[in-house]
Formats: sequence, structure tokens, C-alpha cells
Amino acid sequence: MAQIATAYRDEAPIAAHLESQPLFRGMAPELRATFIQAAQMQTLSKGSILFLQDDESEWFYLILSGWVKLFTETMDGDEAVIDMVSNGHLIGDSAILEDGIHSFGAAAVEPVTAIRLPSSLLKQAITDDHKTALAMLGSLSRHRKRQSREIESLTLQNASQRIGCFLLRLCNPDVPMPLTLTLPYDKSLIAARLGMKSETFSRALNKLRTETTLAIKGSVVTISDLDELSGYVCSACSNEFPCRDLHS
Amino acid sequence: MAQIATAYRDEAPIAAHLESQPLFRGMAPELRATFIQAAQMQTLSKGSILFLQDDESEWFYLILSGWVKLFTETMDGDEAVIDMVSNGHLIGDSAILEDGIHSFGAAAVEPVTAIRLPSSLLKQAITDDHKTALAMLGSLSRHRKRQSREIESLTLQNASQRIGCFLLRLCNPDVPMPLTLTLPYDKSLIAARLGMKSETFSRALNKLRTETTLAIKGSVVTISDLDELSGYVCSACSNEFPCRDLHS
Repeated sequence: MAQIATAYRDEAPIAAHLESQPLFRGMAPELRATFIQAAQMQTLSKGSILFLQDDESEWFYLILSGWVKLFTETMDGDEAVIDMVSNGHLIGDSAILEDGIHSFGAAAVEPVTAIRLPSSLLKQAITDDHKTALAMLGSLSRHRKRQSREIESLTLQNASQRIGCFLLRLCNPDVPMPLTLTLPYDKSLIAARLGMKSETFSRALNKLRTETTLAIKGSVVTISDLDELSGYVCSACSNEFPCRDLHS
Repeated sequence: MAQIATAYRDEAPIAAHLESQPLFRGMAPELRATFIQAAQMQTLSKGSILFLQDDESEWFYLILSGWVKLFTETMDGDEAVIDMVSNGHLIGDSAILEDGIHSFGAAAVEPVTAIRLPSSLLKQAITDDHKTALAMLGSLSRHRKRQSREIESLTLQNASQRIGCFLLRLCNPDVPMPLTLTLPYDKSLIAARLGMKSETFSRALNKLRTETTLAIKGSVVTISDLDELSGYVCSACSNEFPCRDLHS
């Protein structure tokens, strides 16, 4: 179903990538080897569908590069972007806990490289192997925390604060000011990711520029006062900047 | 820390309540017995705090009756109600997967009865017992799905649709029309639960009344056309009414 540009096998890089993941790191080497053997390195072109909502889960994916949009579609055809994920993210793995059905879709919004792995193998490993079940619990729990923060943000932050929060999460607080960063993907996708229509996004971005010293030119953002921005954003949140836990 | 009105021990009802929960149902009887023995039945008065955000997790709770508010607090003192839970819900259990720290607070918004159980016992059971780890995985996964739908709703539904969705979830589609139901808790709490300020809630409720045949008098809601209401609400959602999975 996924539109795969190329698919080839190369075990050494696959092994290294899997070992970098908490889900596979603690696994007995023999069990991990079955995943490495069954894994496929993939290059996906922009627009490729990895899986759709309500699809039976055949594969789960470790994203290596490029941005992937996780989304649901409403009855009247609108799309909710529930997350944007990239390098180091596992997606589709939790379907095995939901009757083997994907509860959201995933699509590449730019060229993406990923490793795909059979869902059946993960299901078996969790059923048979206690360490794998515990690793999966850790992964779901991090995801749950991330989602709780998302609900909090959608509930309490205004649109300008949500944009500011998105930018703050891209910042390294140890870099000297002014800090320059490039938006990771299109503004229209950022708007969708933050649950805003594009007009709301434009208005809120203008307000953020007026109320702070932040500057944006095209996709380049310059932040000259991180304390000012975090003060503006984080007052409406229960987390303090930098809230690194959200990246895990 | 929790303000406990009474605390007493009675193993028979505790055993029955725990056995009704997927987390305990599949457990070996000897393991379940350690939970039953350590469990405490509690009556909590309105306003009692079960635990606060950032507290070390000592107990987790099975709610038996009454509504409990799950919330986070922002730097400037605002509160985000991230969920409202009642009869049959386990809360605070996932803290053991998050370094033993509660990532949200819980407070009784009316008199509540609950069973509290030591977090350390659950942590041990998950570490030692594969069946318990798998049951916990199932529970976290249901929670994750519920949260994804919540993010979708906050992203795509307007305020009137969110109120309609809240009401639909209280409806039994098999009951003949007109259907009468009582709001489960205060309108101000419903507003907070749906991430709205009270003025937004009032405006959106009026709009919902104008655009559908729904009637509300005090806390009593009369729905004379379920198809009309679900048509209005569910067009902006990827789920169709009745979406029972959200209750689990």
C-alpha cells in the first residue's frame, strides 16, 4: 500500500539504528536479530502514505530522516494533524495493542527514509518476552505524557503562545543570543500541527512578533531574548522552559 | 496528603471491585491477593486532593463513585482540566512508568469513594509478572487512543460541536426518543473539561440550541433527534456515533 521508491536490505546500518532505540536496546541479541533480519530500509517520496487510519497493521516504522505527518480524517473530509514526527521516532507500533488496527494515518510530507518492521514480530515479542513488554510500556508512557501536554496546550495557551511554544521547542538554551533557527517544515503544516486555520496562524504570528522581539523572515526565525519569549509562552503552561521531556 | 474522611478495610467488596478491572482480572490469584490485602477503601469529601502534579507517587486509585478532576496548573495559576473520570477508572497508575512522579493532579469534585493501592506493589508486579505488564500495556493503549481523539476534537470541532459531542457520549442510542439526560457535573466544570472559558461555553451552548432541536433546562437535557445531533457533531470528527471506545 505504501508507495515505495526503493527497498533494499543492508543489515549493518539497520542493526545500528535499532540498537539506538529503547524498544530494542534491552532485547536479547537473538530476539533483536530476528527484527534486524525482517527489517527493510525504505526511501519514501513526498506524499507517500505509510499507512491509513483503520488499515490493518502490517508494518511499523522507525523514521530515520524527513518529516512524517500523523493524521486522522473527519467524515466531511477535513484532516486533523495529530503529530509531526521525524528522526528517531517509532510509528504504528501501538496498533498491535489496538486489535491490529491503525488509529491514525501516516504520510511523508517530504522525502523520508525509514526502516519498516513486521507488526506480527513485535506482537510476538511482546507476548513472549517480558523485557520487550517493559520497553514497550516505557515507550507508550512517554507518548502518553507528550499527549497530555498537547491537550494542556490546546486548552490553555492562546494561538500566539502555541506558536511561541513550538519555536521554543526548537531552541537550544545554551547557544548565545541572538539565536537563529529554520522552521522545520511549511508554515501551513505548522498551523495544522498546532490545530489552527491558516488565517488564525497568520494573525497569531503577527501578534507574537508585536508582543515579543522575535523576528521571522521566510522560514528563518531570529530570537534575541529567550527569557522574554519563554516568559510570554510558558506562563500559560505547567512546564518550564526547556521542557525537553516532550521530545522523547 | 489526601484529605481522607474515613478509611476502613473490608476485603470482600475490594476483591470484587479489583476483579472487575482488566489490570487485575488476568493476574494469578496469589498476586491479586497481595493487592487486595494492601488496598484501602476510602471516602473522600468534595475538594479532597488525591495527589498533586509533581508529587511522588505513593498510591494509585480505582474510582468507585463520584467525579474526579484530573488537572495541571500553569505558572500563572490557571488550571487545565485534562480529564474527568468516575466509576471504574484507574488513576495515578501510570506514574510508576514516569520515574514515580505524578504528571497531573487529581481532586474530588463531589463526594467520592475509591480504593487506593500502593504504587510500589504495582511497580513490583509489572517488573516481575509478564501478564501484569501486558494488562498494563492494554490499559495505557486505551488511554492513548482516548487522548488522540481528544486532541482531534480540540483541533477540528468548534465549541458547539464539542459540547454536542460531550452530550452524545452520555446517550444510549437504543433508548426511544425523546431522550432525557442529566448533566453529570456542573456546567463550569464541563466548560473546563472541554477547554473553554465560561463565556465561550454559554455562547456555544446557545448556538447548539439554535442549530439543533436540543433543549436544556438547568441540568436536564432533552434530545428529540439523535441523528440530527450526531450529524451536526460527528461531521467534524473521524469517529461515527456511537463511539463507545472512548469510554474505556
